[in-house]
This record gives sequence, structure tokens and C-alpha cells, in this order.
Amino acid sequence: MRTSESVVAALLARGDLWEVAPGIIALRGHSLMLLRRLEREIAMLAHRDSPEEWSSPPALAMRTLARADYFTSFPFWLTAASHLPDDEAALERIATADDSAAAARAAAQATDVALPPALCYHVLERFAGRRLTTTRLVTLDGTCWRHEGARLAPLERQWAFTMREIVCLGDAEAVEDFRQRGMRLAGALASRLDLDAGFLVATDPFFAPTARGKAIVQRVKALKHELALPIGGERSTAAASFNNHEQFFGEAFDITLANGEPATTGCVAFGLERWLLAFLVAHGVDRVCWPPIDVSLAEVES
Amino acid sequence: MRTSESVVAALLARGDLWEVAPGIIALRGHSLMLLRRLEREIAMLAHRDSPEEWSSPPALAMRTLARADYFTSFPFWLTAASHLPDDEAALERIATADDSAAAARAAAQATDVALPPALCYHVLERFAGRRLTTTRLVTLDGTCWRHEGARLAPLERQWAFTMREIVCLGDAEAVEDFRQRGMRLAGALASRLDLDAGFLVATDPFFAPTARGKAIVQRVKALKHELALPIGGERSTAAASFNNHEQFFGEAFDITLANGEPATTGCVAFGLERWLLAFLVAHGVDRVCWPPIDVSLAEVES
Repeated sequence: MRTSESVVAALLARGDLWEVAPGIIALRGHSLMLLRRLEREIAMLAHRDSPEEWSSPPALAMRTLARADYFTSFPFWLTAASHLPDDEAALERIATADDSAAAARAAAQATDVALPPALCYHVLERFAGRRLTTTRLVTLDGTCWRHEGARLAPLERQWAFTMREIVCLGDAEAVEDFRQRGMRLAGALASRLDLDAGFLVATDPFFAPTARGKAIVQRVKALKHELALPIGGERSTAAASFNNHEQFFGEAFDITLANGEPATTGCVAFGLERWLLAFLVAHGVDRVCWPPIDVSLAEVES
Repeated sequence: MRTSESVVAALLARGDLWEVAPGIIALRGHSLMLLRRLEREIAMLAHRDSPEEWSSPPALAMRTLARADYFTSFPFWLTAASHLPDDEAALERIATADDSAAAARAAAQATDVALPPALCYHVLERFAGRRLTTTRLVTLDGTCWRHEGARLAPLERQWAFTMREIVCLGDAEAVEDFRQRGMRLAGALASRLDLDAGFLVATDPFFAPTARGKAIVQRVKALKHELALPIGGERSTAAASFNNHEQFFGEAFDITLANGEPATTGCVAFGLERWLLAFLVAHGVDRVCWPPIDVSLAEVES
């Protein structure tokens, strides 16, 4: 019986996966080819309703996270960009130290720039202060960073991982329709890949007592679902999430509808490495056993 | 007369480019579409000699940089990943601070993990301690980070930018042939895009006095060339570089040839946003004036 552990062990053994730092992996060979195909499939799914495609900046301003109330919600995940002092003498000391890496670590100074824990913050920041005249859809993919302490496992839970996200800004009905449609499309994709998907009502791991009330509201109102894919034994991984933020971010970022009300926002997010892992657990690491995945998305329910 | 400044101003004005943090940009619209096309063209060029494609991990271990003598060479560029202490009380103080972003910045701790200043370090680390039985070619693309202080300019000089790199490991002749062929292919691509390329002998901005001798050797032996593309006025941007490291990294990473000698390494690197900028300076920001760029690479000299 295959499990995430046996799949990762097989990829490590054949040199198709390796860790360059804790929670930071590299891929090559067929597993990389498969990841790229899954990325294309999920990008095509994301583009079904003709969203705008944006590039995903590799960092964002801490003030954007603060505006999103991030520091009461998920501070434990935060990864920031730091750099060395712009000071010739300090650099000289690092260059000539017995252990330059340790000296660099000790001298590095954090900045006001964070690495993105999710991609929707880029969209919220860009729409801040704007009045929407129509429902807006934006999609983007890129690297997300969530520091997970000792809970790291290749493909399943990485410090840095690849996300495809679709963000919807509009009225309450448009956003909930978008979220429900995202669930249908993601479920159909999982079926087509012969993956045994289940949907669960979920909550975010809000940190501060003041923010924990949000988790109760999420659960009671079913504002967050996750698509769970089996990864061996009795375990599954949350490979996509479907989130209705109601007016929380509309208020925080002053994004309004034509009638002056705060916009509702929602997002659908796919964790690419988790799709790869679930696919390999289901079908094995030998590509001769993989079902074809390059068929047209026309087969997916719209 | 178009310049990099007028092009960036036009993109900012139409909302196709914006800065989310100093040196960190987002793109949308036709300029993003063009960047993706240039990425594809350059990826096809990189794949001409059937290299292995690897994913580019978004970070690497500081010890890998130390092994490459990075801290005497380019310490000023270093960007490290930092995160908050894994300590509930400290996180609580950040969450409840008047200015959570400032509190997070103050509490962030640097790690042993750096953001890649170039992609070839991933390849060197992976081949460390190995004996090569044949010339090896690897290509990868991803985000690179070089902290440039106040010298930042969108597209031209970013803190984070996109690189496509091809790395060659083999004997001295194979690597120099690879580098020369890279120059021919890159020059042909520039011609096909109707860009007025020039090649220059270049040196890296080595930091420490002990490392500066390397720059002299680079220049005298012409070990580094750059492809310069005009960006208005009398200015140009180094949009690709062609580097022969001789046996420096082979020795540092204990990569040997079949005969036991240290391997020679070289790399060819493309800065994607600089190609985009040079293209827009040459042809304007309106896509109706762009030359077709989706023609087959068969036209490029092999």
C-alpha cells in the first residue's frame, strides 16, 4: 500500500526529489514533468471564467499583511526577507569570518518586506480604495511561504510551495457562486485524475484570541471548504481550499461596490505539490501507470 | 525617443506594472503576456541541446553559498529568509502591538536559508562530491534575489527578478564550447526580436580584496561576456551573461571528471525582465507595433 512516505522515499531514491534546505525541495525528471502538467491543468481550470492573469510578486509589504489583520491571524507562518547591512566594514567582517554563513546569519537585518503566505494579498492590496463596477476575477500562481516549524514533509507540508489562486471580488451572491463553482470544477478535476476527493468544512488556524471568533463563524456559516485527497493510510491532504471572506477584506482594504457597500471577496487556492503527491500516491511513481492527464477540460463540468 | 524610464512610466500609467515593495513588481496585461512569450522563447533556446530541466528551489542553504565563496564575492546582494520566534508569548506581543508590522520586523530572526542570488548554486550543490562520466547540462528558471540598495529600477534592476539559466559541467573544451554557443544563440534570438545586441567582456563585482584578483583574471582571459541590449539614450542593460568558471567551482564542490581532475563549469544566464524592457524600449508598449515572436526557433542558428 502506497503512502506519502513511500512515494517520497521512492522519489528521493531515484534522485527525482531532494531537499536543499528544511522544507525547500527540488524536482527533476518525470515527477517535475507531472507537476508542470498538473499546473497547466489547474491553470486551465482557473481560466474557465476568463479572469485576468497577474504575475505573482515574490514578496509583499508587511503593511499589506497588517492591513489584512495577518498578525493576529497567522503570525507563526510569517517569513520575511532580510539582508545584510549596507556597510563595507560589516561586509568585510562577514567575508573574512571563519564561518561566513554564521556571520551573515547573525548580521542579517529584517526588512518591511515579507514573502507571501498566500497570493490573494497581492490582489487585495491592488484593489485597495477602489470602487468596483462589476465582479472582478483575478488569477495568479507563484511561491508561497509558511514557516511550519518541525511539521515539514516534502510535497505535503513545505516551507515554500507553489499555489494557484483565483480571487473574486463582488457582491455576496457572486462570490458564493464563484466559490461553489470552484468546488465543482476542482472536484471534477480530481475525478478526471482518478483521485478520490472529499470536501470538508474547514477553519483557518487563527492565532490570537481576538481572531479565533472568526474560526467559529467560518465553521457555523461553512465559509471555508477544503478538498481532501488521500495520501495513504487513513490520511489525506488539503489540496485546495474554497474561501468566502464575506466583507472582512472589503472593509479592511476599503474596496466597495457601486452602491458604496464593502465588497465581498473569496478565493479558491490550489496547492500544487499536494496534487502531485496525491496523484503519485494514487497511481505510483512509474509513469507507465499514470492515467492520461492531457485530455481537454471540455470534459470537466462547467 | 523611448527610454527605459518612459516605458516604465507608460506601463505604470496603464496599470500594467506596479511596485508592491521596493524592487518587487507585479505585471498584468500585454506586458505580462509578452514576458511569458519571451520566457518560452528563451526556454526553447535553453533546451536546444537537450539539457535536463530541474525545478528551481526558491531558497538554498547558506552553507552552499559559503562553499561557493559567495561571502567574499557578493555579500552585499545577500537576501536571507527570516521568521518569527516559535514562541507563543512573542507572537502574542506582535499580534497585539500597535504596529504589528514593525513588531514583526523587530522580532524576525534570520535563518541558515538564503534566497538564491543565482540558480547555478543549486546545480553545484547537487553535483558536489560526484565524478562526471560525461558532460552534463542542466537548465532551470526561477526567481533570483539581489539586494541592490538604492539602485533599484523596475524591470532594469529589481531586488527580485526572473532568471533562466543553463549550467554546463565537463572538461575545459566542452564548457567553453557551450559558452560560445550560448553567445551565438542569444545573439541570434536578439536579432530575431529586432534588438540591437552587443557583446562585452565583463567582470563580476567581486567584493573582498582576496576575491578581486578573480575580476582581473576574468577580464584578461575573457571568461565572462555580457549581452547588452539598448534601453534608450546611450544606456544598455546586461540581458544575458556567459560565464566560464574554469575549475573554481569544480574544486570548491569536489566535482571531478573521469580522470580525477576537477570539472570545469560554466553558465549562461538570461534576465527575463531585462529582455522585456529592451523589447518594449525598441518596439514600444503598444502590441500592434510588436514584431511577431512566436516563430519557430528553427530560424535561430544552431
